[in-house]
This record gives sequence, C-alpha cells and structure tokens, in this order.
Amino acid sequence: MADESRARAAASESDRIAAFAAALRLEQIPSVVREQAKRLMLDAAGIAFASTRQDYGRVACEAGKALSMGTGNSVVIGTGLRLTPRDATLVNGILVHGLDYDDTHVAGIVHVSASLLPTVLAVGAETGASGARMLAAFVAGIEVAARIGMVAKGGFHQVGFHPTSVAGVFGCTIAAGMLMGLDRATLVRAQGIALSTASGSFEFLAEGAWTKRFHPGWAAAAAITAATFAKAGFVGPSLAYEGRFGLYRSYLGPAFEERNLPLLTDGLGERWETSNVAIKPYPACHFLHASIDAALEIQRTHNLAPDDIASAEALVPAEVVTTVCEPIARKQAVTSAYEAQFSIPYAVACGLVRRRFDLGSLEPAALADAATQAVARRVSYRVDPASGFPTYYSGEVVVRTRDGRELRNRQHMNRGCADRPLSGSEVSAKFHANADPIAGADRANAVERAVLGFETIESGRDLAEVLALA
Amino acid sequence: MADESRARAAASESDRIAAFAAALRLEQIPSVVREQAKRLMLDAAGIAFASTRQDYGRVACEAGKALSMGTGNSVVIGTGLRLTPRDATLVNGILVHGLDYDDTHVAGIVHVSASLLPTVLAVGAETGASGARMLAAFVAGIEVAARIGMVAKGGFHQVGFHPTSVAGVFGCTIAAGMLMGLDRATLVRAQGIALSTASGSFEFLAEGAWTKRFHPGWAAAAAITAATFAKAGFVGPSLAYEGRFGLYRSYLGPAFEERNLPLLTDGLGERWETSNVAIKPYPACHFLHASIDAALEIQRTHNLAPDDIASAEALVPAEVVTTVCEPIARKQAVTSAYEAQFSIPYAVACGLVRRRFDLGSLEPAALADAATQAVARRVSYRVDPASGFPTYYSGEVVVRTRDGRELRNRQHMNRGCADRPLSGSEVSAKFHANADPIAGADRANAVERAVLGFETIESGRDLAEVLALA
Repeated sequence: MADESRARAAASESDRIAAFAAALRLEQIPSVVREQAKRLMLDAAGIAFASTRQDYGRVACEAGKALSMGTGNSVVIGTGLRLTPRDATLVNGILVHGLDYDDTHVAGIVHVSASLLPTVLAVGAETGASGARMLAAFVAGIEVAARIGMVAKGGFHQVGFHPTSVAGVFGCTIAAGMLMGLDRATLVRAQGIALSTASGSFEFLAEGAWTKRFHPGWAAAAAITAATFAKAGFVGPSLAYEGRFGLYRSYLGPAFEERNLPLLTDGLGERWETSNVAIKPYPACHFLHASIDAALEIQRTHNLAPDDIASAEALVPAEVVTTVCEPIARKQAVTSAYEAQFSIPYAVACGLVRRRFDLGSLEPAALADAATQAVARRVSYRVDPASGFPTYYSGEVVVRTRDGRELRNRQHMNRGCADRPLSGSEVSAKFHANADPIAGADRANAVERAVLGFETIESGRDLAEVLALA
Repeated sequence: MADESRARAAASESDRIAAFAAALRLEQIPSVVREQAKRLMLDAAGIAFASTRQDYGRVACEAGKALSMGTGNSVVIGTGLRLTPRDATLVNGILVHGLDYDDTHVAGIVHVSASLLPTVLAVGAETGASGARMLAAFVAGIEVAARIGMVAKGGFHQVGFHPTSVAGVFGCTIAAGMLMGLDRATLVRAQGIALSTASGSFEFLAEGAWTKRFHPGWAAAAAITAATFAKAGFVGPSLAYEGRFGLYRSYLGPAFEERNLPLLTDGLGERWETSNVAIKPYPACHFLHASIDAALEIQRTHNLAPDDIASAEALVPAEVVTTVCEPIARKQAVTSAYEAQFSIPYAVACGLVRRRFDLGSLEPAALADAATQAVARRVSYRVDPASGFPTYYSGEVVVRTRDGRELRNRQHMNRGCADRPLSGSEVSAKFHANADPIAGADRANAVERAVLGFETIESGRDLAEVLALA
C-alpha cells in the first residue's frame, strides 16, 4: 500500500504541481510576470478598500468579528479590524470580490487575486515571509488556479459551480503551503484535502444573493486549513484532479472531457498564465465588458438618443448564456446592482444611455432610470458563431434605429485581456479611484509604493500594517 | 426585487425547513425519539474517545492546535485540548467519524451524529444553551440532514460526493442556527450560504486516504460559519435545494429525479427520521454489516475451516457497488484498515475466518492473516435483484465448499436498523468498550449519565466539561 500509494502520487497531476511549487523561486519568474502580479495585487487591494463602505463589506466584518471572538492579529484591508488568519482571509476575499470589479484569468474564468491576495497576506504575515516568497507564492497559486479552470473549458459554470472557488482552493492551498514550507509530498496531500472542501454554488444568480462574494475567501480559508492539516500529517488522496471521484469527474460529470486534462500542467513553470489575467475596466461580470465597449463605440460614432433605439442585440459566446443572458425576461428588468452586473441587457442599455459603466451605474438612481430601463427591455441576445471564447470574452452589439439603420460594433478582444491590457497608469488610476475615498491619498500612495516594491518587503507583517487602517 | 425575493423564499423548501426548526420545542418531540437521540449521542461520544488513540485522531488534534493558535475554550472530546469553537467542531467530527463506527441514517446514507454532536456541543457551550434546547437542535438537524440524503436515493455516492457532509452541512446549519436564536427568515438565508460550502469527495476510497474522516467536522464548522454570516445579515439564496443551481441539480446532475424532491419536507415534524438512524454493531461501512452477519450465521451453523471454502459470493444492493465492491481486485487484497472497512471481500472473509468483526479485525496482524487473505481473494459479488436498499442495507452470502455444498444466509435487515435495533444495553456496552480504555470507567459512567439525562443539563458548558479529559 505504502509503495503503491507513493507510485500513484508520483504519477499524479498533484505531484507535478507540487514539484513545480516546492522548487519555485522568485528569480525563476520572468520580470514581466512579476510586474503583472504586482499590478493584480494593487488592483485587488484597491477594490477591497472600496468594498469596506458597501453593505456586504460591513456585514462581512460583523460576521468575522463574531467568529473570531476578539482573538487574532490578521489584518482586514482598509479597516482597523484584526481577526484570526482564516477569518481575516474570508473577509478580505469578500472585500476583493464583492464589487465584481476584480481580475479574471480569462481562459480559466477564475477570479484569481480575490482568493490569493488574502491567502498570501494572512499566511505571509503569520509566517513572517519575505515579499519575495509571498510574490512567488502568489504567482504559483495563480498558475495553478488558472490551469484548473482551463481544463474545464467553462464547464463549471454550466453545472453551477464557481471556478473562482472550486479551482481557487487548490491555488490557495499551493500558495499557503509554500509559505508554510511544505515539501513536495506534503503539497500533494494538501491538494487532496483541499478537494474535500471545494465548493461554491451559482444559485446566487437567481436573485442576486451575496454568496458569490463569499466564495473566494471561503476557498482561501479552506486552503489554509488543508495546508495546516497536511503539515500535521493528515492524509489526502493523490489523484485530486484526475481520480475516479476527483475534481473533474465529480464536479463536471458528463461535461468533463478527458482530452483537456493535459492543460492542467502543460507548460507549468515555462508559460505563465499570470500574464493572461485580465484587469477589469468595468465593475461587472467580465462577460459583459466587450458588449459595454461595443455599445460605447456605437454611441461615440452615432450619438443616439434613447428614443432613437428601436432594439439592440448582443452577440455573445454560447458559454456565457446561463450566466448573463438567461432567464432573459429577468435580465431585461434588473432591480439590484448585483443583477445588473450579470445582465447583458443592462450592460448594453447602460452603455447606450449612460455612455459609461462605473460604480455610479450600479447605484439605485441609475438602476431606476426610466430611459435605461426602457432600452434594456429592447435588448435581446444571440449566440455568436464566431466568438473568441474562452481566449477572449468577445462581444458584438447590433443596434436597430427607429429610422431603419442597423449599427454594429464588434469587440473581439475584451479590453484588459492579455492582448489588450490596461496600461500601468490606467491600473493606478483605477486603484486610486477605489482606495482614495476610503484611505485618503497619502495612505493610498503608501499602499501603491509597498505593493509595487513587493520584492523588497522584509516581512509579510509590514505589508499587512500598510493595508490596515487604524 | 425585495418582494419577489420574499415570495421565492416563502414558497421554498428552505422555508419549510426553517419554519419547522424555528418553532420546534423539545416537548413536541416524542419521547421515544428523544431517547433514540440520546443513544445516538452516547454512541458518538464513545467513538470519539476511542479515536483519540488513533493516528488520525492525534494528527487532527495537532492540526487543530496549529489552527487555533492557543485561543479558544471549546472542548475536544476525550482530551484536555481547548480550541476555537469551529476548530473543536472540526476535530470532534474527525474523532466521531474516524473509525467508521458511527451511526447512519439508513435511507439517506448520512452519518448524522458525526457532524451534529460536535455542532451542538460547541454552539451549545458557546451560547450556554440548556440541554433541552441542544437536544431539540440535535434532533432537528438530524431530521433535515437525513431527508436531504433521502431525496438523492444514493445518488451522491454515484457521482462521488459524501452525503454525510453535503447533506450534513444543512442539518448543522439548522442546529447551529436554532442555538443561536435565528428566526425563520434568517434560517432560510443561512441554508443558502451553507449551499456554497457543501463539499466532501469520495476520492479517498481509491487509496484509503483520510479525507472522509474530515468531512463531517468540516461540514459542521462550515455550518457555524454560515449561521453566523446569516445572523450578521449576509444574504444567501432562497432555493438552496430546488434551485436551478441548487444542491440537487448541481451535485447530482442528470441523476437528480425531480419526483423525489417532496421527500425533503414530507412529514417533517410528524414522522421522525431520527428513529431511522442505525447504530453500528461493527466498525466498518454500513454497507458491509448484513454481509458480515450473514457470514457469521453460516459459520455458526456449519463451522467451516478456511480451507473448506472454495469460494463465496456476496449479493449486494446495486447502489453500494462503487463504494464497497469495485475495483474488485483491489477490494480482494486490502492492505490498510481503511480499505478493509470498505471491502465486501474482506468483510465476508473476516466473518468466515475470524468469526467476528471488531476493532481488532482492523489491526495489522488481522489484515496480514494469511487465511483471511486467501479467503478474501475467493470472494466475489453480484447485484442482489431483491435488495431492500435503501430502506435496509440488505445482504446475502453464498459459500461454495470444497466438498460441493452451497451454503447461504440472507440478512434482509441490517442489524442496528430501525426495525432491528440494538438494545439499550448493547449501545451501553459498545460505549463502554470504546470509552473506558481512554476515560476510565468512572469518567465514562459520568458521561453516560450526563448524556442519558440530557434534558436536565442546565448549560451546554456543563456537558462540555464532562466530555473533556483534564
């Protein structure tokens, strides 16, 4: 048994991942990838600051306080709150992901930083790890979480699991395990334990419930638990991904395509998926972005009044229909910010009528705007036969005007993706727009300096102090 | 939206469950059900004592200590260890379930007490709830977890999810929520949050990994988190069970049969599923018990030497094949206690050769016994066309002897099930066999008195003290 178990482990996907992670040093990561990783952290931190003023942010802090019962020294970003490491991680995950404004690994459809920044922050502070080790752990976690999502090819969404957490928990387990100094064999066991915590339901979609916001932090806290149990000697199974009841066969069921499995470790340590993480220009589901830009482009060119618009049609990738198009009647008549963030009709209408899509576009006054509502009711969708999904979250909008014109704009690459990235100054501007109102410009500048100089951080404790507000 | 959301919630399965739980008082529970509940608690506590000397028990305590970092005042059964409420809950779940000797709701295939005793113990102590309230919460949790499993009709096992945790997390959310005083609407939201934590993979089976042991405690800790978040105002979806991406459609996929959904709340508060929880006479997967008894009966009658046995065949319910029969070559050659506990060939061989199945039958010397191994290799299985599953975990064994006889015994009801229960003195004897070697007879007697007089406990804190060892 012991021999056979070792043989199974050695040939496993978990072991390939563990070997990569256990050996990874920051110097092996190309500097362009490291720079991207720091931008992702900065972007995520900014959103966390903004979320502290949102209802779910306040509730999450309240719940975290009740759970930690006055103990713990881990920082909740943008607050004076200190919680246990796992509770701080859970709350920080909610703060980063809560606005649906955080980054996405495009082909994997995984919001990577929402679980990984909180993990690295809490475990880095707890272990006193250097910035260099934290940055390497953050990148390794992204590489793993992104690839797990890539194998599924959008399948998790179809069955109702959130890849951000069901893939994210493994990435966070790797990141936490690296910071805790786990060896290769222990990292294999940790991934096996993580499998038994992989969760995150898409049922929130039906009514704009808050649970999607909960997922990345929950995955991160579960990952810290899994890594700690593995370190103590708890035995997880070796075939967490490819086993008979591993992640793919159980969670995807008949939708799992065995031939995609090599994507899991193909090019690991050579091709860096961290470069394919897109920073969002708009606070909405990534599947809406190309349609928003297409609508904005049509308006820049044609300058239509709402009444000019007889109807509009969005061409979307087939894989996003369940998330942002159906049930269509409901998507055409959103009544909450959260529903709006997952509605193609609202996104197109908002682009056409408000000519922007920002946090203000999610405020009650914007949602209740009669002109926007009227246009949203006239937006339908069609599956795009030439979609670039999942390499790009492509989109096209076709507007039919009352006077009989057909106006169209196609965005084959969503803005923010690897081939059309936001610039450093755009990322910085987004960070300050999110963080300054909460932290003040001075403190926000200090956060920006700390994150962009991540390699020079001596201890994770120092970073945590910068992110806390007294 | 708010109105519609309320309407959805009011018509939901979660709401029926919440209405039942929020109104339940101990006096409404028939005394025979309460007596059964106390026996279940006693049985579970005894197993937890026994587990403290097992490798996984020691490792779990170690991991719990690392996670709680010296804080917390919640008791780990049978130890002097104090942890945070959720870490104590996680570790206690591992101790109750670790030997695979704990109770099972038969039709739901859910090990109910393994998650519910730790939940009630930790939350009861934390809130200072009375024994009466804790007992009502324990029963309510069982009623919910059992029914969730019943709807699946064994389907969770087929796709590789462990109903003990994916159903258990909801039962524990109800129990924790009741002790925390959540109202009906908040209990609905709590169940929606719990959905996003439902997890537990059967991949452990392939190599005897320890993760199955982790599941009930993980579910219980997740449930406490879900209830706490709901209490703070976090919003979970209303259709946790029947929604488009609710528990059944996501986790069972095509195996979900809509027509079984009414089982979820049918007779809730009138027919008590707590009475249908079976206490195990043998420390092994419940699916083996009838086959063990059949083998023992054949030996009582025919007194065969191992060499007399040419071959044996077990007739098993189709639904248990993935868990205890396949892959058959592996099941015929177990090398660890854990594999043995899930092997029909080992169970039948052990019954025929050792003429018992006790904790000693899982020790290395028993597993390595040449005669038992030789007979196990000659045990095959066949699907029983007349199985009583899932009402009973039926079994039949057919032995063919070297001298040409065919000897058979059928056990249509597994011993310990509702229609063939263990007696009070059998339960007490099992408890003392488990607890006395750890706690000593005096302390074990004190535990037995406390649990069997549960209604008179003034505060959960008192019970916790009895279960701790200095």
